[in-house]
Amino acid sequence: MAIKQSVLRRLDVALTPSYPVLIAEGLLDNLASYISEKRIAIIKDTVVGPLYAARVKKALEGVGKESSLHLVQAGEDSKTLASFGALLAEMVGEGLERKSAILALGGGVIGDLAGFVAASYMRGINFYQFPTSLLAMVDASVGGKTGVNLAQGKNLVGAFWQPKAVFIDPSVLRTLSLKEFKQGAVELFKHGLLADGSILTDVLRDDFHPQGDPDFLADLILRSVKVKADIVAQDEREGNVRAFLNLGHTLAHALEAESNHHISHGEAVVYGLVFASKLAALRGFSDEGERVKTFWHYVKPAALPQRDFQQLLPYIARDKKHHSSKQNWVLLKTIGQPCIVSDVSLEHLELSWQEVLKLEEDSST
Amino acid sequence: MAIKQSVLRRLDVALTPSYPVLIAEGLLDNLASYISEKRIAIIKDTVVGPLYAARVKKALEGVGKESSLHLVQAGEDSKTLASFGALLAEMVGEGLERKSAILALGGGVIGDLAGFVAASYMRGINFYQFPTSLLAMVDASVGGKTGVNLAQGKNLVGAFWQPKAVFIDPSVLRTLSLKEFKQGAVELFKHGLLADGSILTDVLRDDFHPQGDPDFLADLILRSVKVKADIVAQDEREGNVRAFLNLGHTLAHALEAESNHHISHGEAVVYGLVFASKLAALRGFSDEGERVKTFWHYVKPAALPQRDFQQLLPYIARDKKHHSSKQNWVLLKTIGQPCIVSDVSLEHLELSWQEVLKLEEDSST
Repeated sequence: MAIKQSVLRRLDVALTPSYPVLIAEGLLDNLASYISEKRIAIIKDTVVGPLYAARVKKALEGVGKESSLHLVQAGEDSKTLASFGALLAEMVGEGLERKSAILALGGGVIGDLAGFVAASYMRGINFYQFPTSLLAMVDASVGGKTGVNLAQGKNLVGAFWQPKAVFIDPSVLRTLSLKEFKQGAVELFKHGLLADGSILTDVLRDDFHPQGDPDFLADLILRSVKVKADIVAQDEREGNVRAFLNLGHTLAHALEAESNHHISHGEAVVYGLVFASKLAALRGFSDEGERVKTFWHYVKPAALPQRDFQQLLPYIARDKKHHSSKQNWVLLKTIGQPCIVSDVSLEHLELSWQEVLKLEEDSST
Repeated sequence: MAIKQSVLRRLDVALTPSYPVLIAEGLLDNLASYISEKRIAIIKDTVVGPLYAARVKKALEGVGKESSLHLVQAGEDSKTLASFGALLAEMVGEGLERKSAILALGGGVIGDLAGFVAASYMRGINFYQFPTSLLAMVDASVGGKTGVNLAQGKNLVGAFWQPKAVFIDPSVLRTLSLKEFKQGAVELFKHGLLADGSILTDVLRDDFHPQGDPDFLADLILRSVKVKADIVAQDEREGNVRAFLNLGHTLAHALEAESNHHISHGEAVVYGLVFASKLAALRGFSDEGERVKTFWHYVKPAALPQRDFQQLLPYIARDKKHHSSKQNWVLLKTIGQPCIVSDVSLEHLELSWQEVLKLEEDSST
């Protein structure tokens, strides 16, 4: 029932309590030996559920565990207090106890929602994550952030709740669209910029796609998870170093908000990375513009609406990560050396925004 | 603005992070120096709010802090996900930030609800408790339990979220009805049974009432809080020793549920304490029956409906604190020496229930 040790990759995330991220092709059918609880509630969505939920359930029941399936409509609109309440009521209906566990099978929405249910049900029960999108594998699987949206904004309610283990099976990526795959590729690339240059070349390899060699993908995912795990372990509750993970995200959040979320998060972050690379170069840091633009070409994000930077400014100031009016920007001194600067001039911001707008022209010529 | 050191009682609760319980007459108007945040959202209910909220707000604003008031309908019916969501939306509306704090001004309902809002808003912000009922002072102020009810049961959703400080001003008890005061007296008495015999005699003193000497009340409250704090500090997440605090509560929860909560929690616990004292005596432990019955006379709880013990059994098994079918009971070997036993015979349970039913007869003859 267990995965052969020779193919199992394992990374221990040094949070309190620490937990393993397990990566192996075939985990989907072989995860039961890594779960200690007898009763498991599997929370899935309408897209991933039909593909994989029965196999996970079978794997659990094959070793005598009890499991129940709980369906959530796929998409960000399910990250609400209403879904949260409905799932909690289902947990009571199933007779889930304090010693039972919840397993999130799906992308980031399912992980965030199911994690907050696990954090809150009877004041907290054990939680396992089985991310099925590349984005959830490399991003949401580490850090313990769970939660839902309010009408006024995203992720305004939630908890820090660490999973007991994270299961990553790269073979589930085969059913992911290239568009969704690229959403994860962006965060993976960001992790490369922050701490591991080898990732930056690997994401441009020909076999970096949903149907690529699972062994190659597993190894790349492991390196990316390691970057995030190392940063988060230094700063569990997001006071300080963890802010580095926001590289490219300050502009991205503004683009998403200003477009009323018509731009996807991943696409917005690519633009944010180009923006940050120009800001860094203007400051005299290493100029990584060409490298980031090459990656922008790989992602081929949707065109940006033409906007003056002044139109974005109110959305930048509103970002909830900022405790005061002073604006912090994550910039790279060079690959692997992020820093935070707060004395950026409006002129540099405008120039960097021009660089982003020029991407379109460059690519259409 | 600070309370004179000579009248301030302080107990540090050794949880992670540790926090102080501050007890002094006059704290209501002098709490600002113990709060470090600049912005405070005060959550209050329709009973306590009109009496005390303006004074707390004035104390905060007197030192230049910003505060907002948030009203909740008094009573258990407000402990819902709907109130939780409404308060969260108000927090966003007020522009409350991660570095702001929430202050719960009220009894147990407000503490539980506001605590869960604090635990969840932006994944957790700082939280202060200002309990205004004797029950909330001696019980809810320590342990970090927060949460709301679901239609299927009480406290099924929530978080462990420790306050940054707890403020107890015994002078606010003056506006508490004797009936409400006795609800707290029951938990105070229970703490005496568990670890501090001096409490058992003090609760029978003539000046133990809402308008009693604040210095006497402050000292008694401190000793009671200390009992709970010592137990909770040994067992933060309720695995083990903390179960001692359930002395009298297993029967009490069944009585409350079976009566559809027509019996108050405090009254149910007094009956539960009589029940547990008989169970202990039948087992050959110290017989504290007379002492507990004397306290029962002081409380004068509403008469119990005549019930066969068999009718209560399903409600005892349903108690969420029980992880398996095996029933655990907290019993006293003697005052100050609680233990947990699981091999209680149905015969002893029946006999102890008869003892409870006899209370009515004894008091009417």
